[in-house]
Amino acid sequence: MNNFLSIDDVTNLEALVASARNFKQNPYAKKQQGEGKTLGLLFMNPSLRTRLSTQRAAYNLGMNVMVINVNQDSWQLEFEDGSVMDGSSVEHVKDAAAVFSQYCDIIGIRTFAGLVDRLVDYQEKVLHAFVKYAQVPIVSLESATLHPLQSLADVITIEETKTRSKPKVVLSWAPHPKALPQAVANSFLQWVSETDCDLMIAHPEGYNLSSDFCSGAAICHNQEEAFIDADFIYAKNWSSYEQYGKVLCTDPAWTINQEKMSLTNNGQFMHCLPLRRNVVATDEVVDHSLVLVQAKNRLFAAQAVLDQLLSTL
Amino acid sequence: MNNFLSIDDVTNLEALVASARNFKQNPYAKKQQGEGKTLGLLFMNPSLRTRLSTQRAAYNLGMNVMVINVNQDSWQLEFEDGSVMDGSSVEHVKDAAAVFSQYCDIIGIRTFAGLVDRLVDYQEKVLHAFVKYAQVPIVSLESATLHPLQSLADVITIEETKTRSKPKVVLSWAPHPKALPQAVANSFLQWVSETDCDLMIAHPEGYNLSSDFCSGAAICHNQEEAFIDADFIYAKNWSSYEQYGKVLCTDPAWTINQEKMSLTNNGQFMHCLPLRRNVVATDEVVDHSLVLVQAKNRLFAAQAVLDQLLSTL
Amino acid sequence: MNNFLSIDDVTNLEALVASARNFKQNPYAKKQQGEGKTLGLLFMNPSLRTRLSTQRAAYNLGMNVMVINVNQDSWQLEFEDGSVMDGSSVEHVKDAAAVFSQYCDIIGIRTFAGLVDRLVDYQEKVLHAFVKYAQVPIVSLESATLHPLQSLADVITIEETKTRSKPKVVLSWAPHPKALPQAVANSFLQWVSETDCDLMIAHPEGYNLSSDFCSGAAICHNQEEAFIDADFIYAKNWSSYEQYGKVLCTDPAWTINQEKMSLTNNGQFMHCLPLRRNVVATDEVVDHSLVLVQAKNRLFAAQAVLDQLLSTL
Repeated sequence: MNNFLSIDDVTNLEALVASARNFKQNPYAKKQQGEGKTLGLLFMNPSLRTRLSTQRAAYNLGMNVMVINVNQDSWQLEFEDGSVMDGSSVEHVKDAAAVFSQYCDIIGIRTFAGLVDRLVDYQEKVLHAFVKYAQVPIVSLESATLHPLQSLADVITIEETKTRSKPKVVLSWAPHPKALPQAVANSFLQWVSETDCDLMIAHPEGYNLSSDFCSGAAICHNQEEAFIDADFIYAKNWSSYEQYGKVLCTDPAWTINQEKMSLTNNGQFMHCLPLRRNVVATDEVVDHSLVLVQAKNRLFAAQAVLDQLLSTL
Repeated sequence: MNNFLSIDDVTNLEALVASARNFKQNPYAKKQQGEGKTLGLLFMNPSLRTRLSTQRAAYNLGMNVMVINVNQDSWQLEFEDGSVMDGSSVEHVKDAAAVFSQYCDIIGIRTFAGLVDRLVDYQEKVLHAFVKYAQVPIVSLESATLHPLQSLADVITIEETKTRSKPKVVLSWAPHPKALPQAVANSFLQWVSETDCDLMIAHPEGYNLSSDFCSGAAICHNQEEAFIDADFIYAKNWSSYEQYGKVLCTDPAWTINQEKMSLTNNGQFMHCLPLRRNVVATDEVVDHSLVLVQAKNRLFAAQAVLDQLLSTL
Repeated sequence: MNNFLSIDDVTNLEALVASARNFKQNPYAKKQQGEGKTLGLLFMNPSLRTRLSTQRAAYNLGMNVMVINVNQDSWQLEFEDGSVMDGSSVEHVKDAAAVFSQYCDIIGIRTFAGLVDRLVDYQEKVLHAFVKYAQVPIVSLESATLHPLQSLADVITIEETKTRSKPKVVLSWAPHPKALPQAVANSFLQWVSETDCDLMIAHPEGYNLSSDFCSGAAICHNQEEAFIDADFIYAKNWSSYEQYGKVLCTDPAWTINQEKMSLTNNGQFMHCLPLRRNVVATDEVVDHSLVLVQAKNRLFAAQAVLDQLLSTL
């Protein structure tokens, strides 16, 4: 593993999940693995749980951590090659990424979707520029279109919770008042489709995700129908891919409630948090769900990834 | 001790003070007490000395620290049970507190007084919600109405400085151009009244504190009279409790000067800082005071509290 | 060394450079030197590379680090003695510096040039107030008029790169759209003039630096002429000293390009970064330069300074 940007960087998912589960049993098993190493966490937009879980993961491995919260306005990066930088950009990403590499052994970076221009978001310009110019491994702390640390935590959660070898997993769109990125949904599909499961996506008309992530998944526009016999209901809102970044529907009929959950095979509710209660899902559903298990597993997902990257340094 | 929110969480004040004074003699006596443990410090409003003293205390115990500065605007919490979260709140405190508990072994939280609605401030909604929903011990880093780590530092300072077994301690209101909370004054009364002393409160008419905190203290509206024979003058401004949050008086006649200090029994001046010089007290008074001793003791107060909480994990 | 504010605090530059170069070879040679010690880094304005390099340096020595980003608006310091603080200042620097000293063993501080009033900037009021009132060593992380950690890194870079015992070093002004401080240029002159070299300054008319820093350096208004036979070209923009803080020239004829570099003695290009590409220097020049070596040496410059200060505690 040279970087951790998506499932494509994982050569052995089973081993990575096993490593995370081992850390969950014994968080300090490798407390000297990161001795003398420093993790830089660069946030191009704010983060709470990703920062805390990754920071704690680094501490568990004996690393030091430096957090860098970038105010977009005060430190505007240049991304074009050859440009004459006499405008608002104060530093070229080429130099910034290389300089950070002098002080950090691994760099985590959080970028975000603008939700205005789909091409721009799906190019992942910021992330890929850091990967290109950094001299150390890069870990995505969520990018414009993917959230691999979340997805790894989700796969761990499913693996340790499933009651049959090939569970039915439903990714269900849910309402939300604001336009949200597709990153969590895309990434969940990428990762879960690498495990042995029946994968189904439930969403209203107009909420297709990019076909790049949907191969192997059945798509259903009837939420109740999708829930039947499901082992896991993974709820997430995303704004439209076709009418990019638009909110087409906030229909509370898509809110996940206990009645719908009762259609499942004693199915477990999952969500990456933060979650708008009684909009995405009812209190009853959230209060008896796997959301805190997922949150806990974020720590061990990050720890397994950092451990693997440290072993390559 | 399950949490540290007020004097009520302390079963043995004498032992806690002794522990702090031991750490002052030997800061690294328990440098492995917090090994592998992480303190999360959550600031709902800015802090300098509380953050630094608590962070240093954690380091002295071998803990790691994660600081979380919450921008109220960007991460609005929901506090009502059952609400349909389709407005501005992005996460329920129930979930936020539980999630932080996955990554932190102890959580410190700083909340603040709005100074608009007394009932709201004295409910301590934010602090109590975190206590209710967190799965780890909570330490108050100052709340809307109490500041226990400051008060513990103040008690330590009095204990190590007093020249007679039952000193006279005067809490004196002092002028300030802006409306300030009652937290430091309330909390000081709570803690000091648990020690063996003659406690007196001096303030202008209209500046009564809540009677909940004044039992056992004499109240005097004549500052000079109050100072006579005092061993400790603890200065603090607070805005009105009755006309809640209002500034009724900025009379410089209440500024503490050397002339007034000369009425005392070689009394020592105390203040929690920050302090507006020549408004609260004159330079001469501040320059020959215990303010830096108090500041130093903040560190050891926090260390004694963290040590005790760590021993329960 | 009591503080580290300028070259004047260095009694043996050669030894300091040697120490830094030793750390570069073996960063963890003294990993217990700072055990139980905490570095406070106080930023009165934002910093990225200075913060990261100094923080990493502290970690390499086993120190803990507390970063304090001061929002000027929310925490306005008073600097005048005896003032009646009933205005916007909330704390006197006398108290702030003394309080920080209770929690930190060494304090790093970044202040900045207002670029409005030259006298004010060159007084270095903020830095000197902290030095006066702090009870622990102070390290300048760049002040209004000097940047000694950068200059030490620059001297290290020249020492380890030079191909003749007395190299020709040219400090060349370069264009920039915004007004910049003179700190890096002043400081570079101060430090490099303590080494064995031929020092020349190239700048357009009207861009004289303070004569306090130029003794021993030849001054030339013809950039090409200055570059002839140079071993090092140190590029930097600064705004006018005479017409203080003004931008008098943005002439791209002063941009450093490969053609000019070919006039040198296989000269190496240096810059402290961040750098506006194709304004200060062309891509080709920057891409084949020492800028990343300088960035790396920032770490070891800071480590050598912290190590020396720690040895005095």
